[in-house]
Amino acid sequence: MKFEEETISSKTIYDGRLIDYVVKQVRLPNGETASREIVEHPGAVAIMPFTSEGKMIFVEQFRKPLEKAILEIPAGKIDLTDSDPRETGIRELEEETGFYPEKFELITPFYTTPGFSNEYIYLYRAEGLKKIAKPRAGDEDEFIEIKTLTFEEAWAAFEEKRIIDGKTIIALLYWKIERLSLNKKED
Amino acid sequence: MKFEEETISSKTIYDGRLIDYVVKQVRLPNGETASREIVEHPGAVAIMPFTSEGKMIFVEQFRKPLEKAILEIPAGKIDLTDSDPRETGIRELEEETGFYPEKFELITPFYTTPGFSNEYIYLYRAEGLKKIAKPRAGDEDEFIEIKTLTFEEAWAAFEEKRIIDGKTIIALLYWKIERLSLNKKED
Repeated sequence: MKFEEETISSKTIYDGRLIDYVVKQVRLPNGETASREIVEHPGAVAIMPFTSEGKMIFVEQFRKPLEKAILEIPAGKIDLTDSDPRETGIRELEEETGFYPEKFELITPFYTTPGFSNEYIYLYRAEGLKKIAKPRAGDEDEFIEIKTLTFEEAWAAFEEKRIIDGKTIIALLYWKIERLSLNKKED
Repeated sequence: MKFEEETISSKTIYDGRLIDYVVKQVRLPNGETASREIVEHPGAVAIMPFTSEGKMIFVEQFRKPLEKAILEIPAGKIDLTDSDPRETGIRELEEETGFYPEKFELITPFYTTPGFSNEYIYLYRAEGLKKIAKPRAGDEDEFIEIKTLTFEEAWAAFEEKRIIDGKTIIALLYWKIERLSLNKKED
């Protein structure tokens, strides 16, 4: 494989609840050695939930790494017991918004930060949302607030930097492209 | 601040070359405590470099966390000695592609993965590229190959999952929106 870096040794520095920190010694293509600091992550899902009025559902939550609250699309990490990311996505949507989607479609998977982590997020588009009478609860240590926004409101939140994370920006740009493509057809 | 999680204690588990692993004990809004695993990162820049023919310059490199080579837009981490992210961006563009940009415009900053890291990337758009006679060299342990692609070629690479990281997907979606907006004006 191109420019492959062969592992010489690998050491788990910390085995965390969510993420592990691993340092690997590698052999470079030129024969030299180097060390690589890697955060191992179980993977995650993120969902673009569209209401019947064409709004999108966001969650506001405090993010300790940023020391502030931001607006994001619903998301969650994959559990080892999940049969596939689709199952994770439908459960996270229920836990965070109380809805079940009639239509649940994979938009794209992506790596969030390939320079130091293997975190892989599956981004879904959810439609035909049905209110669940008694939705499962989310994690005990998660405090979130639901915000249902029009495209214009969401774009304004992006310009005000209340929407400022990669997955939610990808969702917004997809939403904008859908709208531009629709307008074009209607011209 | 909404849902704020006050720090009770903080412990640096590992002080790495690129990233640090920190575990914080926090007080939740309901008074309970929880632990938060945080990867501290110095921040980064990424650049969308457009050639005079309207192509974009990508770099192909092996990413140890993914154990494969992928196509990305040029990027690099911010050095403590940089006066601002713009300086980092112009240097990274020189080191990775050998070009100096006449126009260098901030598109948006964003957090790559707010659930576990404070990594913040400044995404720039570069135009008016001038070849530098003797460009500065990049990191010694970095092996990259330049690929200059049309929009159609880049989109095909995305569909083939050779382009598969968040920042490069954001760049591609911006590129698509620019093209859709231009086409619309020309209708």
